[in-house]
Order: sequence, then structure tokens, then C-alpha cells
Amino acid sequence: MQISARNTLQGQVTSLKLGDVEAEVTLQVEGGAEITATITRASAERLGLAEGQVAHAVIKASDVMIAVDD
Amino acid sequence: MQISARNTLQGQVTSLKLGDVEAEVTLQVEGGAEITATITRASAERLGLAEGQVAHAVIKASDVMIAVDD
Amino acid sequence: MQISARNTLQGQVTSLKLGDVEAEVTLQVEGGAEITATITRASAERLGLAEGQVAHAVIKASDVMIAVDD
Amino acid sequence: MQISARNTLQGQVTSLKLGDVEAEVTLQVEGGAEITATITRASAERLGLAEGQVAHAVIKASDVMIAVDD
Amino acid sequence: MQISARNTLQGQVTSLKLGDVEAEVTLQVEGGAEITATITRASAERLGLAEGQVAHAVIKASDVMIAVDD
Amino acid sequence: MQISARNTLQGQVTSLKLGDVEAEVTLQVEGGAEITATITRASAERLGLAEGQVAHAVIKASDVMIAVDD
Repeated sequence: MQISARNTLQGQVTSLKLGDVEAEVTLQVEGGAEITATITRASAERLGLAEGQVAHAVIKASDVMIAVDD
Repeated sequence: MQISARNTLQGQVTSLKLGDVEAEVTLQVEGGAEITATITRASAERLGLAEGQVAHAVIKASDVMIAVDD
Repeated sequence: MQISARNTLQGQVTSLKLGDVEAEVTLQVEGGAEITATITRASAERLGLAEGQVAHAVIKASDVMIAVDD
Repeated sequence: MQISARNTLQGQVTSLKLGDVEAEVTLQVEGGAEITATITRASAERLGLAEGQVAHAVIKASDVMIAVDD
Repeated sequence: MQISARNTLQGQVTSLKLGDVEAEVTLQVEGGAEITATITRASAERLGLAEGQVAHAVIKASDVMIAVDD
Repeated sequence: MQISARNTLQGQVTSLKLGDVEAEVTLQVEGGAEITATITRASAERLGLAEGQVAHAVIKASDVMIAVDD
């Protein structure tokens, strides 16, 4: 499947917090940066996410803001 | 200013496309990955964005999806 | 690829409008409803979108609102 | 009220999960597809959502991604 | 129609910029603050937006970030 | 830091609900309107949010919808 989202960053799950409805997932991506996502708990379970697993952060361009230092 | 968005990735502007209402900005971030944002043209001009400039991609955790290979 | 987004609706491209930065794509999905997306023009071109093509609308659960009639 | 969001799909609540802050709501929409939303628990209670209730999924065009099979 | 989005701010259209695919709309809301939205051009036309018109900014809670000064 | 998000509304925290993964924060902004955000609990703690604190609601233009009365 190819998706229109412009940003896909490969990484590894470094932390996974399962809540009642939501789950918080952190990946360490290439270059060492960390990316945190909140997805539904059901999705975290469907994808079988676990620490150490290879996964991708997928982000639509319209959801990315740009900041510059003053 | 500290912001609740969990993801801030530092990089350099590698491409900037100004449209009538929107602008498309690509940064190369640490580790070499590219992140593309669509922001309003007015914001691109307000921030004085230009190729080569240091900038940050800022992304709310709820806007990040996770994907795994089949 | 499996993605955490909870909503994937299969359909057919019924209209495609390419702007300078953005593109507007409408699919007719199962049951006859129409779904409209705005994605970047570059993504519309990368995916080779054209009228009549089979495609999927992919939507994160946190981007769906619920409304009820008064 | 008319809203700029381009996508409104009528359906029926088939499942409702109330969490501490968030709630997960699934509708079956025309054509049989399911759409899942995460909204705040307070909104789920304000709208008086319950299984079997007629409701609409409302989605902004900029929150819809397009995917195509490889 | 009642919608799950938690934030509805009434105001008046103070500026409207129609692009090829997108439109940028600014409202002055109660208290004098300005809120800018990008919606599709088709929606701006469907709603018949024009300067001086009473309109509401509608924002989902999950799309609001919080910032604090250092 | 300057950010591309077009909307920043100053206000005061009037309520804060900490969930397992998410937190719901309400600000009263200039003019008396209330704005509610859902952010991650970790961000609410990182920002040290508490009732009465001065804070800003930050919203990307592409996340704002426009509605008009019928």
C-alpha cells in the first residue's frame, strides 16, 4: 500500500503505554530522534506493538508545523 | 515558549514551494530523513523561511500514526 | 504495511483537482457516499491518481468527529 | 448549522467505549463500512451517545489521506 | 446539529482569500482575537462566506495544543 | 520560538483532568470564551499545568473549521 502521507520515518519502539482508550507509543528513529504517537489502544494491540519492534511513524504534511528560533 | 506538542525535530530547509494559500516546506532533519510540512503561505513569509535555514518540525502526538510491515 | 489509522474505506476516484501545492481528491466509497481529501499535489502525482482508479480513504480515529441531529 | 468539513457520513452507533478522558465511538455507515472516532468522554456524554443511535461521522478534507494498492 | 468538537467560537469574517484548492478565512471572535482557518475553496463557496458575515470557528479538542511561556 | 501555527490565544487554565494517557485542559481566553484541548498527560506534567496558570491555546489553521447558521 502506498499512502499520500508525505512523512514516513523508520524506527524502533522504545516505549509503549496502554491506556483505557488510547496508547502512547515512542519510537527512536534514524539519527536518534524520538517520535511519540498517541493511537487507539485497539490499534496498538492490532499491530502487536512491543518494545524493540521495528515500526514507522507516518505523518501527513498538513499535520506538521514549522518553528524557527527567535 | 514550551509547547505541549511532543515532537520537535531540528533540521534545515531543503525546499520551499509557495502557493497561493499554502506553502510546502521540506526539512532535512538529524539522521538525514526528510520531513515535509504544508503551512499557510503567510506563515512561511512571517517566519522568513528560505533554503538552508535552520528550522524545526513540530508535530502533535495525536497526529502521528504507527505502521508496521506485514 | 498495516497502519494504526482505524478507518480505511475503499472506493473509486470520481474527481481530482490539482492545485499549485494541494490537490483535492473525491472518492465514491462502498454504499455510494463520497469522501473528499486534500493531499499535497506531489502525493497525488506520486500515487498516479486518476479518475476511475481504485483507491482507499484512510482516516485516523482522532480526526473523526461525531454529530447528532438536534 | 452548515460546516466547512467536506465529509459527513450518516450511520448508527454500534459500539461506545468510555475512558477517563477519551471515548471511542464506532458507527456503521451507509454501505456497511465502519467508522471509528475518538472524541472526549465529555462530548460523548453531552451528545447522549448510545448504541443504536443515529449519528454522523464528520471529517475535514485535510484529515483524509489517500492510499493505493502497490 | 450538535457536534463532538469541543470548541465553537462565534465571530465575523474579516478576511477571505480564495486559492485554487484552498481558502484562508479569518474571523474576529469575541474578545477581539483573530482565528484563521484553511478550508477548501469549495466549502468557502458552499457556505457563501463573505467579509462581515457572522460565522463560527469550530475546533476539535485534540487539535488544540497548549503552550506556556518559559 | 516562532511557530507556523496561525492561532495563539492567551488565557488561564480553568480546569485540568489528568487521565492515564491523555489530559483535558480548559482555558478561559480573552473575551471569556473557553477553549478545551486534549494533550498527552506527560505534556501536561512537563508544562507544569495547574488551575489559574497563564497559558496559550495554539491551533494550526488547517485544524480550524468554519460553520454558519442555517
